[in-house]
Amino acid sequence: MPDSPPFRVVIIGAGFGGLETARALARAPAEVTLVDRHNHHLFQPLLYQVATAALSPGDIAWPVRTIFRRQRNVRVMMAEVTGIDTAAREVAAGPDLRIPYDALVVATGATHSYFGRDEWAPIAPGLKTIEDATDIRRRLLLAFERAELTEDAAARRRLLTFAVIGGGPTGVELAGAMAELARHAMPREFRRIDPAMARIVLIEAGPRLLASFPEELGAKARQSLERMGVQVLTGTRVTGCGPAGVECGEERIAASTIVWAAGVVASPVGAWIGAERDRAGRIRSGEDLSVPGHPEIFAIGDTATVTDGKGKAVPGNAPAAKQMGQYVGRLLAARAAGQAAPGPFRYRHHGDLATIGRRSAVVELGRIRLTGLVGWWFWGIAHVWYLIGFRSRVVVSFEWLWSYLTFQRGARLITGREPKGGHATPVPGQAPARELEKA
Amino acid sequence: MPDSPPFRVVIIGAGFGGLETARALARAPAEVTLVDRHNHHLFQPLLYQVATAALSPGDIAWPVRTIFRRQRNVRVMMAEVTGIDTAAREVAAGPDLRIPYDALVVATGATHSYFGRDEWAPIAPGLKTIEDATDIRRRLLLAFERAELTEDAAARRRLLTFAVIGGGPTGVELAGAMAELARHAMPREFRRIDPAMARIVLIEAGPRLLASFPEELGAKARQSLERMGVQVLTGTRVTGCGPAGVECGEERIAASTIVWAAGVVASPVGAWIGAERDRAGRIRSGEDLSVPGHPEIFAIGDTATVTDGKGKAVPGNAPAAKQMGQYVGRLLAARAAGQAAPGPFRYRHHGDLATIGRRSAVVELGRIRLTGLVGWWFWGIAHVWYLIGFRSRVVVSFEWLWSYLTFQRGARLITGREPKGGHATPVPGQAPARELEKA
Repeated sequence: MPDSPPFRVVIIGAGFGGLETARALARAPAEVTLVDRHNHHLFQPLLYQVATAALSPGDIAWPVRTIFRRQRNVRVMMAEVTGIDTAAREVAAGPDLRIPYDALVVATGATHSYFGRDEWAPIAPGLKTIEDATDIRRRLLLAFERAELTEDAAARRRLLTFAVIGGGPTGVELAGAMAELARHAMPREFRRIDPAMARIVLIEAGPRLLASFPEELGAKARQSLERMGVQVLTGTRVTGCGPAGVECGEERIAASTIVWAAGVVASPVGAWIGAERDRAGRIRSGEDLSVPGHPEIFAIGDTATVTDGKGKAVPGNAPAAKQMGQYVGRLLAARAAGQAAPGPFRYRHHGDLATIGRRSAVVELGRIRLTGLVGWWFWGIAHVWYLIGFRSRVVVSFEWLWSYLTFQRGARLITGREPKGGHATPVPGQAPARELEKA
Repeated sequence: MPDSPPFRVVIIGAGFGGLETARALARAPAEVTLVDRHNHHLFQPLLYQVATAALSPGDIAWPVRTIFRRQRNVRVMMAEVTGIDTAAREVAAGPDLRIPYDALVVATGATHSYFGRDEWAPIAPGLKTIEDATDIRRRLLLAFERAELTEDAAARRRLLTFAVIGGGPTGVELAGAMAELARHAMPREFRRIDPAMARIVLIEAGPRLLASFPEELGAKARQSLERMGVQVLTGTRVTGCGPAGVECGEERIAASTIVWAAGVVASPVGAWIGAERDRAGRIRSGEDLSVPGHPEIFAIGDTATVTDGKGKAVPGNAPAAKQMGQYVGRLLAARAAGQAAPGPFRYRHHGDLATIGRRSAVVELGRIRLTGLVGWWFWGIAHVWYLIGFRSRVVVSFEWLWSYLTFQRGARLITGREPKGGHATPVPGQAPARELEKA
């Protein structure tokens, strides 16, 4: 049909789901527009390594344009989507762009949820974007620098206390990497403090870590973390976050640096299109991942909540988002070509994995469970495999090898300006004035 | 003298000069305090490669603490110096630190000078810190993204026009790298604009480029730049910088992105200690690099203006700063040990080098002059050699090899938030509203 207008697919979000949708449309007679407010695709599973100074942002992020350089039916637009007109079938983006679609794929992911306590956000940042990661890196490294400068023992203790809220994979990996940083990368470099004395507290409201993994692996993770000196508090609900630290009911943990890894809420796109959503704001997608009442709109990845054929919820991780993207891409390719649609979406669970610092990881692959060093090797190879492009694979492999051999970190930079107000790290001036050198 | 108080040396600034001073004191009976407001030493000669997305900040910056991990007589403090009490011999830093000294080394470098037109600063940022580099990178890459989105031909032309003000080594290297980025790294990735059509204008007030290099090399640099499509305007004085572009008398260059590489002014430390300064604010150091009237204070690097034994001014570059640092370090080591001071400072000129994009550089080594490919190889090897640590040498070499073979850039990320106001890049909304897709 050379003269019929092209089938226009608009994909919002260049995360794992959006990327796979566009890729699966490579040979389809479709005009694909991929809109994202960032210019890069981010490999989020390794973002905690940027936050803990092991990798540079450029190692785990790639321009979306470069990824689709050779796929000529994709047009990449860097713009913030501001609304969706489902009647006119148009996406509004930037200050005045309107992008018409025949099919729309919503793959906008999720953001941190503070369960209605948004005032905690500036004190306990979450980890979703590169800016989040370099912000957390700055807070972490500044806390050590400030502890080295202060004369006040209580202030020093608070500066060297780090709280991670949330015991899912992100919280577990972050707490492990922070313990590594303090115990292995920093010592010998300070003259007055011992970074190895840093206290890292992982706080989880539920009864155990890694709730979505088999119970045995949650227990293993806890063991590994405790062996590294991380204090693990399960069954502990956070009731307050402030400059003085974290409050859990009657208890207070005087921590200067707090990271939020507890809850996420889907992006607001579900509300814009008036779709039915669950408590976390996720769109209840149908069995072909379309939005009920809108066969031309699809919601995938963390924006959607999908029930498997067997009635089990599909997990909110990268492999699931990629599978959904591939499915919708294939479905739309068939629709564009006027062919029959594939059957309903089926999620294949390949496994779960999380790493805990140096030489330890927990891996679940169906009946196979790997822990410790074997798990760690599996984890490392799997992650390098999934990075995009030869360059990132070489650089990340080299950075890891180098860190492994030398215990050093390659990206220990304090960059960016400090936001005004809301920062939990006290400046040294809050300690009593005194001379530093005693000569 | 085991019971006499230690000789206390305070060094302000962890650039090339400050670092070498501290290193030269490694075996001296001295207590060294190195104060810097950043936690890292920055290899400034390659900063333009971060601004043009070829390298990541972590590749060319290292924590100062890590550098002095094994030199136990150095204490590193990350704090902003706020004043110097020459009577009490104390440095004031942070909100309330006071650091007493027996000898003080001022190695605080220089910052951009807008010749009294500080209102140009937000529009035409300079390149001194990592934040400057990622800011310029964001502006550069955003300009291409916005050009791709706009329908307005005039706005697109303005977005794709880049002005570099100042034809010294930084300006020449930046303009070359920007031309490379536009011509080689970007094409095939955009669907509506051709990045190779970008116009790059290098504006120099003086009669030629690279005024501090031999005339022949300045001419070579101009040739190379023009062959890459850079428009070189010499003898052209900038009279205005604004959102509409750069004004040079009657002429106006409608550029959305402007980078300032024209002038520097020394840090204000000279004023604090009441030293005699030249027009660029540099302290006139004596022949032993001490500040006249203060035999216990030394000014080195870009903070100082020093005349060689033969009456020639020592240049303001990294090798000169390192030589000054080594000299002062040795002088203070002798003073701490109660030995005789060395003779006056002698600058040894090893050469000048600047690179111009891919496969071209100009190098002057006494009577030897290298240009083109040979110069470029020499330049690359020399720069890798001077990087700190095995990791950076491997990573930078690999990034360069990879860029060379693939024409790609490894760090093409738009990160950071846009500052409010003062940004010269118009948002697409300033173009007339229109539908993007024509279907």
